Amino acid sequence: MYTDLMSTSERLIESTRDLLWERGYVGTSPKAILERAGAGQGSMYHHFKGKPDLALAAIRRTAEQLRAAAERSLEGPGTPYERIEAYLRREREVLRGCPIGRLTMDPDVIASDELRAPVDETLARIGELLAGIVEEGQRQGQFAPELDAGRIGATILATVQGGYVLARAAGSPAAFDTAVDGLLALLAPRTA
Amino acid sequence: MYTDLMSTSERLIESTRDLLWERGYVGTSPKAILERAGAGQGSMYHHFKGKPDLALAAIRRTAEQLRAAAERSLEGPGTPYERIEAYLRREREVLRGCPIGRLTMDPDVIASDELRAPVDETLARIGELLAGIVEEGQRQGQFAPELDAGRIGATILATVQGGYVLARAAGSPAAFDTAVDGLLALLAPRTA
Repeated sequence: MYTDLMSTSERLIESTRDLLWERGYVGTSPKAILERAGAGQGSMYHHFKGKPDLALAAIRRTAEQLRAAAERSLEGPGTPYERIEAYLRREREVLRGCPIGRLTMDPDVIASDELRAPVDETLARIGELLAGIVEEGQRQGQFAPELDAGRIGATILATVQGGYVLARAAGSPAAFDTAVDGLLALLAPRTA
Repeated sequence: MYTDLMSTSERLIESTRDLLWERGYVGTSPKAILERAGAGQGSMYHHFKGKPDLALAAIRRTAEQLRAAAERSLEGPGTPYERIEAYLRREREVLRGCPIGRLTMDPDVIASDELRAPVDETLARIGELLAGIVEEGQRQGQFAPELDAGRIGATILATVQGGYVLARAAGSPAAFDTAVDGLLALLAPRTA
């Protein structure tokens, strides 16, 4: 339940964000959203066309926040390696999974071009940021020049997304850290 | 629908496996299982205690097959690097996601120690196999001796699991391959 100071449409969006993260799109019923938001059915249809429309607003907001968090780590101070490390080690609710990545396992999200778009765009944007930082590190001699920066960016992003999977399987955030530690060892700047 | 030559309990298990892969546990209703299996409600409760019991049989079988497929690639011919490459590049239905990894995003699977166990054990087993091969490669001088084999095994597994996420987000298997290519470049045997 959310504070009465929030508008009904805000409460609906925030409730939907929570439920999508916890239970996914398929597992989130309009009834559960209304209950959590403390709103009536009429108010949902007053503000949104239905569950897909409300989910789209929720996913867009979560995507925006995830992208901003990644940018904060990646555009912070330090060498390219240090910025990648900061991104990999930034505070995460690992056992909750990635609120955006988890949606890719949701058949109704993937079947809808509209719902999938913010998921795809967010991951692509973070991948591009990572690739740019790898390139910067290559220019500075931190990373081997023969590496394809776009591919390495994808590997970094995949390790994070897969790290969530391993942590949730094991029931422990340590499994995420282990995968990240391995990647950082592979990326470690050359001392040659 | 499955062939009439299969027993009812077999048809129930196979239908459940398909539906878990497609829609996850939360998205799979007993009704959908019975429809796909062409079975009546009575037959499900004759063979299984209910949806969790049937899902456990289905998940165990899928886990067993996934582990066997990983073992085939990893225990095949070639150098340690080549066997890791064979595992990473083995034929996969990338856009369907990993039938085991995807279950980690399913709240009801993760909330049940019984349903989570085969998921955890399978991923842990593949991670151990990978770590063993990395160690073998270290003994042969293919991989840097300072790497922690267990961590690198986790990174390889995470890249695969995250590769599925990226591919489903992008709607293209190429995103999986890009992440794998990056990892293989980072793992490439030292020529020194």
